[in-house]
Amino acid sequence: MQTVYLAGVGMTKFGKSTSTLTELLCQAATDAIASSQIPAVEAVFIGAMNCEEFTGAGNIAAATVEALGLAGVPALRVETASSAGAAALHTAFQAVASGYYRHVLVLGGHKMTHHNTSAATRVLAEVIDYQERLCGATMPALAAMITESYRKKYRLSPSRLHNILCRIALKNHLNGAYNANAQFRKAISEKDYFASKWVATPLRLFDCSPITDGAAGVVLTAEKTDLVVSGIGQCTGPMSLRQRESFTSFPATQIAAKRAYLMAGVGPEDIHFAEVHDAFTTFEIIGTEDLGFFPAGKGGDAAAAGKTALDGELPINPSGGLKSRGHPVGASGVAQVVEVVKRLRGEARPQLKRDATRALAQSTGGLGANNFVTIVERVEQRRAPHKLSLPPAQTPRRPATKEPPPRAENEGRLETFTVLYVTPDGFLAPLALGLIRTRQGRLLFARGEDIEHLKPGREVYVRWVDSYYSFTVKSQLQKVAEALAKFLRRLPGGGVLKKNTGEKKL
Amino acid sequence: MQTVYLAGVGMTKFGKSTSTLTELLCQAATDAIASSQIPAVEAVFIGAMNCEEFTGAGNIAAATVEALGLAGVPALRVETASSAGAAALHTAFQAVASGYYRHVLVLGGHKMTHHNTSAATRVLAEVIDYQERLCGATMPALAAMITESYRKKYRLSPSRLHNILCRIALKNHLNGAYNANAQFRKAISEKDYFASKWVATPLRLFDCSPITDGAAGVVLTAEKTDLVVSGIGQCTGPMSLRQRESFTSFPATQIAAKRAYLMAGVGPEDIHFAEVHDAFTTFEIIGTEDLGFFPAGKGGDAAAAGKTALDGELPINPSGGLKSRGHPVGASGVAQVVEVVKRLRGEARPQLKRDATRALAQSTGGLGANNFVTIVERVEQRRAPHKLSLPPAQTPRRPATKEPPPRAENEGRLETFTVLYVTPDGFLAPLALGLIRTRQGRLLFARGEDIEHLKPGREVYVRWVDSYYSFTVKSQLQKVAEALAKFLRRLPGGGVLKKNTGEKKL
Repeated sequence: MQTVYLAGVGMTKFGKSTSTLTELLCQAATDAIASSQIPAVEAVFIGAMNCEEFTGAGNIAAATVEALGLAGVPALRVETASSAGAAALHTAFQAVASGYYRHVLVLGGHKMTHHNTSAATRVLAEVIDYQERLCGATMPALAAMITESYRKKYRLSPSRLHNILCRIALKNHLNGAYNANAQFRKAISEKDYFASKWVATPLRLFDCSPITDGAAGVVLTAEKTDLVVSGIGQCTGPMSLRQRESFTSFPATQIAAKRAYLMAGVGPEDIHFAEVHDAFTTFEIIGTEDLGFFPAGKGGDAAAAGKTALDGELPINPSGGLKSRGHPVGASGVAQVVEVVKRLRGEARPQLKRDATRALAQSTGGLGANNFVTIVERVEQRRAPHKLSLPPAQTPRRPATKEPPPRAENEGRLETFTVLYVTPDGFLAPLALGLIRTRQGRLLFARGEDIEHLKPGREVYVRWVDSYYSFTVKSQLQKVAEALAKFLRRLPGGGVLKKNTGEKKL
Repeated sequence: MQTVYLAGVGMTKFGKSTSTLTELLCQAATDAIASSQIPAVEAVFIGAMNCEEFTGAGNIAAATVEALGLAGVPALRVETASSAGAAALHTAFQAVASGYYRHVLVLGGHKMTHHNTSAATRVLAEVIDYQERLCGATMPALAAMITESYRKKYRLSPSRLHNILCRIALKNHLNGAYNANAQFRKAISEKDYFASKWVATPLRLFDCSPITDGAAGVVLTAEKTDLVVSGIGQCTGPMSLRQRESFTSFPATQIAAKRAYLMAGVGPEDIHFAEVHDAFTTFEIIGTEDLGFFPAGKGGDAAAAGKTALDGELPINPSGGLKSRGHPVGASGVAQVVEVVKRLRGEARPQLKRDATRALAQSTGGLGANNFVTIVERVEQRRAPHKLSLPPAQTPRRPATKEPPPRAENEGRLETFTVLYVTPDGFLAPLALGLIRTRQGRLLFARGEDIEHLKPGREVYVRWVDSYYSFTVKSQLQKVAEALAKFLRRLPGGGVLKKNTGEKKL
């Protein structure tokens, strides 16, 4: 397999822009080419998510090469939800590794600030499970429910959780203040964090990455440069919340990382800094655990202890991350690699405590459904020869049928929940969403009838309404009545007056 | 570069379906895997166009592997408008050629019959140029204008043109009648063809491929099988009608074919049959010319002479083509290869006149904006070693700015036109559309104020209305008045009464 090197990189300023998506992509492209020793490219790979609904225009690959004056150059778009940029990079890697192309341009871009939050939230939510969307679930809602599960599993008090999340938000905003391309170049205070409004409990505005326009570009080449892509790994995971085994980690990241580490012949301890997909502050904590930097449940403590700060032992998101650099979804996977390259080349300020020669970028598609890990290192640091680890081959089965019709499962316990304050179009805020474990052990995703009395473990009633489940928390009175009914059932004759049904044995 | 072989293939019945897109993809996938010697795959590449707007759901790659029971397997979506299936196949080819994966599954699928024609037409039109869409242009409208240009360039009378187009429609419907997976399994008569309604003059309903649901799948492998992918080629082209040099060919197909022929070490004369992207009957004619099967302007004659029929010397679309097999846009590029494989393996009926060992599939994205050519042959036929021809590298330039503001170009001639009878949402039918060559030589795409008196070469007035150009054909009286004015201008004093402007030299 041909070794794949990194040449030039480029990116636009992230934030609100009046440029079109094509213009943003062209700017990142010309910057990436201009900073390369490679003056010309043979193909273009573009990561973009749902540009049709966000911009009203399709055929983005052909449109972009034409606008770049590269008419005729093969171009295609790659999409894996919010990790589309990383997917384009990995696809381009394989094209160069095969020897079919020698120099290719990878682009990622997104344009969405011309929509209001409600409209953008609805379109972004199309990447999550259909049934959960019918309840009004959004990406922040599901991330919030993951956060609540994490809090419960690792026995964090609400205030401890918020102190940790706040610490990550503060760190990433501080880092972003140094980044000329970041959307927010302003450090925030603890007071700012705690004053910010709820998006979906327990996540506040400052826990969520913003709505952003922007584009980033990278040139990959078969010609030797100072930086090599030494490991790549991809893995998919479940779409829905209710059909996953873990609510406090993303196995897709763990497996993608394992593949990338094996290919590069390194381990998490060999990484000097990382760009982690912090679409939500919780995702950064979980990401650092899934990547093997910290044990499960300890990512938050590590961040709170300053280990992941710019001057820490393992800086995470020294660029400011998605949180403060901004998150133009299709661009983020490429932008992470742009930041990694800049820092490895010593072009990013302020400098880290130690000389970094090997770094990692991790990108998440949807709710951990399509994740990528990329390892980049200085050529002189590369451990040769690396051994390619093939993912295990798998045999498909006939797909499961649609959501099973509602069964007589009308009671359960709240596994996790959120109160959503920024709802998708057509849903009134605030909106309670819960993941219910029924008595039969099945997980149901349901809309709450009330936002009061929610707590993991609480007993609830569930019912099927039209096309989704609805739940309500059992009151004390209902519990007493139930206990009484149960007691009565144990009495001789079941405690129930036998009704004469009028039936007679013939 | 690792040689890439074809293992199993599968496809759903094409047509109207009550299955979801994911279900269709799963069916094609399980059929393709089941017919392979390869029981397991390491990655999945999916060609799909705008599934978000057509089905309301994104993240199709993760959703599909999860539904297939392949959770964890790397999967991504590739998109290049209507050639998305072919793009997925070429991307997967590079992934296997690189040695990164050994066995991969390629899928293409589309679900759109649940929309009415007007809604589907609007969404499909997003792949064409924005400015031309503002006029109400659709894919059939632009294909019709290409057809009108072709007719004029090669001096075909309207009746000769229609006899040729009819012949192609009849041939493809006859071929489709043999294909168990085709949407239309019924031969049509000349009478049916001429009775079918106008979609956009000079194209009738039977000149256009239908709205279709369906999916197709192919397994690519590094393990030797009976069939090898011996050549692949891709090339992009201009999006708009007005910014292209040729209105009677698609240079992107010509270059993609050249690349594929060079890689396979063969020429058009070595191809035994071909699946050509006949989204419109005209596209099949142009395709056979661009692929080098027939000289420019002679593709129609060849078809009319029966050369491309099942029992002809070079059968084109023996499967029925997009015309009668149906055109689920993202699936078509994969379905063409499925058909090619079946026929090369002798599994397709009726048999061709001669034993076919090498075939070609050609797929078109949008209006010839992103085209692919794939050559498949029996392993024993392969000419070794083939030399890889790299496309010439190109340097990008800063993109051109948006559509230039309307200039004082108010007169020109009709280059080509159509009257559109199936209009996108929000446009009344019939709608005249014209490509105008102004006196200054620039091409403008404009909406007609009237559907009468349209003919290539006709003189027109053009004006800028809000966001698009509008044109009207000059009447005889206007021409006489203009000639008179011109004559008067030649007289001493310009023939114009000098107006006293009240200005005085100071």
